[in-house]
Amino acid sequence: MKKDTVLVVGSVAIDDVETPFGKRVGAVGGSAIYFSMACSFFTKVCVVGIAGTDFPRDTIHALNERNVDTKGLVIQEGKTFRWGGKYHDNINFRDTLYTELGLFEKFDPKLPEEYRTVPFVFLANIQPSLQLKVLNEVASPRFVACDTMNLWIDTAHDELLKLLGRVNMLLINDFELYDLTGEYNLIKGLEKVHDLGPEYVVIKKGENGAYLSSKGRLFFSPAYPVRKPVDPTGAGDSFAGGLFGFLATTGRINFRTLKKALIYGSVFGSICVEDFSINNLLKADHNLVEKRYRFLRNLVSLL
Amino acid sequence: MKKDTVLVVGSVAIDDVETPFGKRVGAVGGSAIYFSMACSFFTKVCVVGIAGTDFPRDTIHALNERNVDTKGLVIQEGKTFRWGGKYHDNINFRDTLYTELGLFEKFDPKLPEEYRTVPFVFLANIQPSLQLKVLNEVASPRFVACDTMNLWIDTAHDELLKLLGRVNMLLINDFELYDLTGEYNLIKGLEKVHDLGPEYVVIKKGENGAYLSSKGRLFFSPAYPVRKPVDPTGAGDSFAGGLFGFLATTGRINFRTLKKALIYGSVFGSICVEDFSINNLLKADHNLVEKRYRFLRNLVSLL
Repeated sequence: MKKDTVLVVGSVAIDDVETPFGKRVGAVGGSAIYFSMACSFFTKVCVVGIAGTDFPRDTIHALNERNVDTKGLVIQEGKTFRWGGKYHDNINFRDTLYTELGLFEKFDPKLPEEYRTVPFVFLANIQPSLQLKVLNEVASPRFVACDTMNLWIDTAHDELLKLLGRVNMLLINDFELYDLTGEYNLIKGLEKVHDLGPEYVVIKKGENGAYLSSKGRLFFSPAYPVRKPVDPTGAGDSFAGGLFGFLATTGRINFRTLKKALIYGSVFGSICVEDFSINNLLKADHNLVEKRYRFLRNLVSLL
Repeated sequence: MKKDTVLVVGSVAIDDVETPFGKRVGAVGGSAIYFSMACSFFTKVCVVGIAGTDFPRDTIHALNERNVDTKGLVIQEGKTFRWGGKYHDNINFRDTLYTELGLFEKFDPKLPEEYRTVPFVFLANIQPSLQLKVLNEVASPRFVACDTMNLWIDTAHDELLKLLGRVNMLLINDFELYDLTGEYNLIKGLEKVHDLGPEYVVIKKGENGAYLSSKGRLFFSPAYPVRKPVDPTGAGDSFAGGLFGFLATTGRINFRTLKKALIYGSVFGSICVEDFSINNLLKADHNLVEKRYRFLRNLVSLL
C-alpha cells in the first residue's frame, strides 16, 4: 500500500430525503460513500462496506474513476441499508422517518488481504464492535480516526470506550460531545474526551464551524457560509473525508497540518450540502476547493 | 465633546437571575449599564437612561470612576425596571420569568445639552421610537449603531424600519436576524438587512461567534471559549460596548478597524459571562483583555 492510502469502513446506503428545497427518493448515501467521495479528491481510498444489488452500479463506477478501490465493498443479493429523513424549515434540524437495516444487519466486515497494510484508517459511524474488528485486521496503521453517534454512546458504551483508547483522533458533533461527556461546555467536554484516549479531537458544529483540540491547544475553523444549503445529509462524513484526505497526503501529522486539514474538512462539508446526495461532490474540482479554502482563511484575516 | 466620546441610550435594570451556577436577586443590569461598563474600558461614555431610587448608588459611583458620565441617567422616585430570568442547564437557553417596567414605562429620554455634540451613538435595545428620539437630539453624529429585539421587530416594525434607514450599523443576534428577514440562512438574511439601510451589520451568535458584514465582505470572529459561563445576561450588550469602544478610539471607521472591534466585542462578551451581573466586567484589566484578544487571533492562526 502506498503511504498516503486511506481505508474507510462505514455505511453504504440508499436514502429518501426531504428538505425545504425538494425531495429525493432512492438517493445514494451512507457514511463510507460520502467520506470516499471527499477523501478521494486528495488520495486513494479503500472502502469496506456492504450493499445490495439495488445499489446503483453508476455510483460504484464513479467511485472507481475517482481513485476509490471498491474491492472491500461487498455487493450481495438483497437490500441496501435504507434511511428516510425529513429536514425542517430550519435545515439544521431533521427527523429520521425510518431506517431499514437490510444487509447491513449482518454486516461482518472482512478486509481484502492487500488492505491490511493501509497506513490511514477512518472508522466511520457504525457499531463500535465492527470498528474494532476492522482496526484489528490492519497490521500497523499510522493514524486512526473514528466517528460515532448517540446510539452507540448509549447502547455500546463499553466497546466505544475500548475503541477510543485505540484511536489517534475522534470526530464527533457537539450533541455527541454532550452525550459522551455529560458536558454542554466545550472546554470541559474536550478535556473529558481526551482523557478517554484520543490525542486529537474534532468537534463538528455544522454551520457553526469546527474545533480541533490537542494537548490543551485549540484551533477553530468557521464553516463556509453556504447561500443555499439544499441537503445537509452526509456533510459530517464529507467533512471527515476532506480532512482525512488532506492529512494523508501531507506526510506529516501534527497540530499544524491538522489545522489545514480541518479547513479542508469545512470546504468539503460545504460542497456536500449544496445539492442532494453526492451530486455536488461529484462536480467539485480543484478550483472550487482552493477558492473555498482561501475564502475561509480570508474570513478570519485582519488584512 | 471629545472626538472619541460615545453616547448610549438603553435600559437600566435590576435583575433576578438564576443559572445552573447560582442565583442572584437584585443584581445590577440593563443594556446601557453592561454597554457602558465594557465601552468605558476604551473611552468616555455618556449614558442616557432612567432608574429608580432603588438602583444601587455604588454602581453609579463605579461607573463614574470608570469614565462614564451619568448626567443623562435620571434617577427618580420609584422602581427601576426589573427583569427576572432563569437559564437552562444548557446555558444558551433561558426563560423570562417576569418584567416589571416601573419607571421605564414613562421613559422619555432627554439629552443634557453637552451630549448633543457627541460623535458616536449607540442605541441599545429599547423601543425604536425612543431610539429615534435620541438620535434626533444629536446634532451630527459621526457613527450610529443600534440593537433591537424580537418584541420591536413584531410590534414596532415601521418605526424600526425608519430607524434602520438612519444607522450606520445594526447589531442583532441570529434569532433576531430570522425574525427581521424571515431567513434562516445567514447570507440571504444579511443581504436583506443591508437593503434596509445599515452599511455594517453584526450578527451575534453567542458561543458560536459573530459575523461582520459590509458590501459583500464578510469577517468572522469565534467566541472566546469560556470554561465556566456563569451568567450570560448582558453578554450581547458587553459585546457591543467592547466593539463600539474600540471603534471610537481608532479614529478610523472602515472594514479593517471594524474587524478588530468585532474581536474586542467577543472579548468583552466572554468576560461578562464569567460572573453574575457586571461583577467580572468590574474586574477586567488591560492584561486580561489583551490576553483574550491574542487568544482569539491564535485560535484561527495556521502558525
